[in-house]
Amino acid sequence: MRDLEPEDFELLERIRSNFIEVTKIFGFKLMEPSPIELLSTLEAKSGPAISNEIYYFKDKAGRELGLRFDLTVGLTRFVASRRDLQLPIKLCSFSSMWRYDEPQFGRYRWFYQWDAEIFGSKSIEADAEIIELTNMIFDKLGLKNCIIEIGDRKVVEEYVRREMKTNDERLILDALRALDKVKKKTIQQIIDEYADKGINESIMSKIIEFGNLRGKPDDIINSLKEQGLQNLDNLIRLTESLDTRGMKNVLLSMGIVRGLDYYDGIVFEVFDEKNTDIGALAGGGRFDSLPAVFDRPDLAATGVAGGVERIAIALSKMGKAKSEELSLIYVAYANKDFIKPATRLASELRKNGIRVEYDLSGKNLKKQMEVASSLNAKYVLILAPREYSQKKIVAKNMINGTEVQIRIDDIVSLLKANV
Amino acid sequence: MRDLEPEDFELLERIRSNFIEVTKIFGFKLMEPSPIELLSTLEAKSGPAISNEIYYFKDKAGRELGLRFDLTVGLTRFVASRRDLQLPIKLCSFSSMWRYDEPQFGRYRWFYQWDAEIFGSKSIEADAEIIELTNMIFDKLGLKNCIIEIGDRKVVEEYVRREMKTNDERLILDALRALDKVKKKTIQQIIDEYADKGINESIMSKIIEFGNLRGKPDDIINSLKEQGLQNLDNLIRLTESLDTRGMKNVLLSMGIVRGLDYYDGIVFEVFDEKNTDIGALAGGGRFDSLPAVFDRPDLAATGVAGGVERIAIALSKMGKAKSEELSLIYVAYANKDFIKPATRLASELRKNGIRVEYDLSGKNLKKQMEVASSLNAKYVLILAPREYSQKKIVAKNMINGTEVQIRIDDIVSLLKANV
Repeated sequence: MRDLEPEDFELLERIRSNFIEVTKIFGFKLMEPSPIELLSTLEAKSGPAISNEIYYFKDKAGRELGLRFDLTVGLTRFVASRRDLQLPIKLCSFSSMWRYDEPQFGRYRWFYQWDAEIFGSKSIEADAEIIELTNMIFDKLGLKNCIIEIGDRKVVEEYVRREMKTNDERLILDALRALDKVKKKTIQQIIDEYADKGINESIMSKIIEFGNLRGKPDDIINSLKEQGLQNLDNLIRLTESLDTRGMKNVLLSMGIVRGLDYYDGIVFEVFDEKNTDIGALAGGGRFDSLPAVFDRPDLAATGVAGGVERIAIALSKMGKAKSEELSLIYVAYANKDFIKPATRLASELRKNGIRVEYDLSGKNLKKQMEVASSLNAKYVLILAPREYSQKKIVAKNMINGTEVQIRIDDIVSLLKANV
Repeated sequence: MRDLEPEDFELLERIRSNFIEVTKIFGFKLMEPSPIELLSTLEAKSGPAISNEIYYFKDKAGRELGLRFDLTVGLTRFVASRRDLQLPIKLCSFSSMWRYDEPQFGRYRWFYQWDAEIFGSKSIEADAEIIELTNMIFDKLGLKNCIIEIGDRKVVEEYVRREMKTNDERLILDALRALDKVKKKTIQQIIDEYADKGINESIMSKIIEFGNLRGKPDDIINSLKEQGLQNLDNLIRLTESLDTRGMKNVLLSMGIVRGLDYYDGIVFEVFDEKNTDIGALAGGGRFDSLPAVFDRPDLAATGVAGGVERIAIALSKMGKAKSEELSLIYVAYANKDFIKPATRLASELRKNGIRVEYDLSGKNLKKQMEVASSLNAKYVLILAPREYSQKKIVAKNMINGTEVQIRIDDIVSLLKANV
């Protein structure tokens, strides 16, 4: 069983607060869909094959249930079922989920994602807002080398359909799946695999070459125009809108196609340019076809999900892992007669929002000082007979070693000003 | 499937941030134990009967797993397995869990708890610190009418053992269980139920009467002394320590015995005096015997868990449910030519941490103003031809209806000062 230990959780918490702060600025409402879904709901998107990759079971009433594998399905089910909601609606979530696949680097069976979706807007401005939101999430987190690679499944489909001279949807989907594998396999492996499925080798080569189109928006759009492609409106308007929003770290990439059962328009992924080996830190796009599965073909949808474990790795790698902690004050006592005044002082400081530790077990003063030092306390406040009889304590600055005497009545205000 | 909708989650988030703030002051480290445990781990505490009350299943490798039903078992398993940890250690967690029982008021199959534990200290000061922490959590949340009722299972056991003149552990446990039911059943029901189990009616009456001992610490301790009970040291030292910590809202109650497979010393529950019908909002105590189940009889343990759903009900009832939100600025445009400048302005404001909404779908100005009003925007900034040509916008104060013109370059600094 994997636990999220304090060091892991400190990072997770930083990623979480940053996410909550930024989504609030953009007007997203935080919620959490049920972690347990009917198996049929989870299969709705991806078909029964998904049950190989998730945890599922029967409850005591015989219902087939499964643990959620993402937050998008649950949020979509929620919005689809609630016809009373005013649209468009912006929802977000930060929580954990489960997949029953083989754990690998940065990938676990139990993991956290953040997720933000806009339901009920067909406008390309909604896609632009999702991408701007994503960018600000990474920017405020301090990951300044993030690149957003954007594709459009409709454009790729147009190209594939034309080159393959077919309307066989299965073959077209296969070709798109092949593109999704370019980063994981060699080109020859892919060509061989899909030759077996009936896709001609030279056509597959051309498609893979098309998938390698990647560069600045204007260059790629010109190149797509030169190839005679028609469905470029969305990409053109999207990149204009992102430019208006002041975003400079945008590339267009025809190799970005993403989860194929899911997305059906603009798609994008976020990479840390200095750590591309981690894989995409976040990804998203338009998925208008998913609400249709829940009887809401009228409901447009676009969104993004970020992988918390991978983002944590990226933060650690750039040395941004350590959060700023509240300074620690350690209250020590010279002997057991002073446990009670020490308790009273610690209690008083904590009531004033100051982070305080003191010994619960009756250690001698030397041991207490060692503990204070190991905890990186900023000051140790020592209660000792002579000073206490004068209503004072000794305050030792643990950084430079100096000691001063302070009147007990002044401690709170002095610390509030100095910690 | 129960979803935590935005209104629920706003409250949960407030309870969560408050918990994180207060536990930090007390030096607890936030973590999260695995949500899925081996079934044998979950049964370790409560025996196989627990499987009737939880979700459990076999994974694809045939292992018997269960969803956690609390955070204490996971945290204890974690600490018990990690002999490298420096003790005492203070850990806390805020997360969700599952129980497969019948949902009732304030009780769901999927629910959230906060949890804080101190491992490795046998000192009564650790119990006192847990209770002080609990008190500050409720105090800072604004629930000012909370009463902490404290019992000691060792004292109750001493009484029961003496009155029943038995060392039959099963009978003694039965009598304690009976006490735990006083709030849920009538006294006659309990007497009848336990008569069947072999506990004499007049003895049961005396035990229930003992369980009704409830009042100010000094009064109850005197009364326990008068009854000739011996094991009063812990209660005496605990109430002294809580007094030193400035806590006034403490009662001793011999009817508090709590989860019987679990606790073995000081136990306590927190009630909202104005809303006792909600039941205990939090409860805890010493559970030194649980680490022993994980091969660590050396590891002392004391802690507390709070029920987030019940606390949310208490907050709602006292009208403390509404959080303070960031003020909203709505950016509106007079016609579609101004969508781009509106987008640029919204983007600029958001980069400065200001919460902004604007229309994604091309509504006319009147509709935009209606939306702004329904969202309770504080100001609407209107981009219109004449003003825009002078590099100005119209700012409408939605509270008093006044309008002023503002230079576009001044908007950010003006809003930062006024929002």
